[in-house]
Amino acid sequence: MTLPIHLGTALEIIAVFCAALSGGLAAVRKNFDLFGVLVLAWATGLGGGLIRDVLIGATPPVGIADWRLLAAAFGGGLLIFVAHPRLERMRRSVIVLDAGALALFVLVGTTKGLEYDVGFLAAVVVGLLTGIGGGILRDLLTGESPLILQDRQLYAVPAAVGAVATAVAWRADVLNVWVQAAIVLGVFGFRLLSIRLGWALPTTPRRRSGPSGMMGG
Amino acid sequence: MTLPIHLGTALEIIAVFCAALSGGLAAVRKNFDLFGVLVLAWATGLGGGLIRDVLIGATPPVGIADWRLLAAAFGGGLLIFVAHPRLERMRRSVIVLDAGALALFVLVGTTKGLEYDVGFLAAVVVGLLTGIGGGILRDLLTGESPLILQDRQLYAVPAAVGAVATAVAWRADVLNVWVQAAIVLGVFGFRLLSIRLGWALPTTPRRRSGPSGMMGG
Amino acid sequence: MTLPIHLGTALEIIAVFCAALSGGLAAVRKNFDLFGVLVLAWATGLGGGLIRDVLIGATPPVGIADWRLLAAAFGGGLLIFVAHPRLERMRRSVIVLDAGALALFVLVGTTKGLEYDVGFLAAVVVGLLTGIGGGILRDLLTGESPLILQDRQLYAVPAAVGAVATAVAWRADVLNVWVQAAIVLGVFGFRLLSIRLGWALPTTPRRRSGPSGMMGG
Repeated sequence: MTLPIHLGTALEIIAVFCAALSGGLAAVRKNFDLFGVLVLAWATGLGGGLIRDVLIGATPPVGIADWRLLAAAFGGGLLIFVAHPRLERMRRSVIVLDAGALALFVLVGTTKGLEYDVGFLAAVVVGLLTGIGGGILRDLLTGESPLILQDRQLYAVPAAVGAVATAVAWRADVLNVWVQAAIVLGVFGFRLLSIRLGWALPTTPRRRSGPSGMMGG
Repeated sequence: MTLPIHLGTALEIIAVFCAALSGGLAAVRKNFDLFGVLVLAWATGLGGGLIRDVLIGATPPVGIADWRLLAAAFGGGLLIFVAHPRLERMRRSVIVLDAGALALFVLVGTTKGLEYDVGFLAAVVVGLLTGIGGGILRDLLTGESPLILQDRQLYAVPAAVGAVATAVAWRADVLNVWVQAAIVLGVFGFRLLSIRLGWALPTTPRRRSGPSGMMGG
Repeated sequence: MTLPIHLGTALEIIAVFCAALSGGLAAVRKNFDLFGVLVLAWATGLGGGLIRDVLIGATPPVGIADWRLLAAAFGGGLLIFVAHPRLERMRRSVIVLDAGALALFVLVGTTKGLEYDVGFLAAVVVGLLTGIGGGILRDLLTGESPLILQDRQLYAVPAAVGAVATAVAWRADVLNVWVQAAIVLGVFGFRLLSIRLGWALPTTPRRRSGPSGMMGG
């Protein structure tokens, strides 16, 4: 078989690899065994796309059928398994890589939804789910309530903006490589900027303190 | 686009809205952020139908493609987010609304399964799952073991009875609007009656007390 | 309807029944109610095949459509519900039955993937998931992080070997009944041997003890 040199595919493989690192790290922190580390790397790297493909009827999903993506996921898991103490110290790099993976997943996922002709809204939803689904699976498999639902960070917001931008550009027939690059950089920059500036989503207002305060939110 | 005035669709939208309230409340109680509240409202309001559509091959599922249903789910989530202290006090109303949503979901879900020609048994199962799937997703996403599996309430039982009744009426070719109304009212009444009368499912018999009693159940 | 006497189907029904026992036991230990016990029996007995069928596009999945498989799952759940104290003492038998179910599920699951023409790799993955998916669902529904990811046992490894062997034999056009029997016995024997000899998967190396040791693994 020939080497995959198509740029889009290459970027997707890199995104899977980066997300797999995050899944592998979560598994190692829970003291999972080698199989558990590989499963978490796979679920985090490819779970978002798996959910997308099931929802748009693209079976079998690339997450179980494309050897390059599976190799990227398991490669990321293995790397974590053998080298995690050093990678633990690279926390800042992991955040940057993860933001890049998010941006790429959203572009790829929304585009695939549109190619399968599921409609604007469904394409935006599966684009968002491609970006955030892997992390949700990672948290559920390690016995945690998904972090993305409660940490108040702007993670899904840049993803949703990117998915809408992709679908709008597709509909306007201007989704060329420059627009794609702008969307990826936009999501990536928005995500990193929100971290640096400490932007946070609201939670429900706490009840004012008082005798009945214990019942609050 | 024209206003949706079809009665069945209108009832389904109301059912999604009611279920979304329950999901939003669960998220607020866990102190989830705004995104988490919206996701829980969506998963609880539309998760049952999403599972149904994936199982019968109806992709993309209406839970990601129909803007009216998505608007109902997110509307319910937003309402909870801004007004939850007042809604917390409406616990009794929420139970009644939830019973109505259950009844509607079962009718709609079973009918859709039959329309997709999946067979009697599969239609009953997806009808049941349409009714209870959202609550199961809600519990899993908030880190809880699903309440419906352990609270001994008759929730799935009225749903299953309604699904069987729907499929029988379909097969007998008598599923007209009056029979549909009877099924919805039957499930709704059965559910509320079981709460008022305290009917409970059995759990496994506890071991008789004694030296080895700690191993029981 | 005529009695199902086809050997392969009969074996699959037995496998579902055995897996359902394991699911029912887990539910009883959590003090789930009758409905919870039946759902856990169903999810454990048929969940792996359900995941497989969704991933290969075989809707509706047999896990909601084939009455014989559903009867086997609910029968296993009911048996546990009424007779669990005696079955608890049969722990050793349950392990043996479970190894047999694993072997059958892997053969059946991989073969079905190949019949649906999903490709070698995807068939191996769905074969593996058919074998291990039910146990993962069982653990998630009882609020546990999946045991298979952390208990260091060789459970997925024999399953993966069996799935690869099945796919290789299919491609070589030699997957006759003798080869099928050899694969099932091989997975079964490999699994039991690994338990008897105490083979274990590695976890990540613990940090050497020391002041910073608490951050390890």
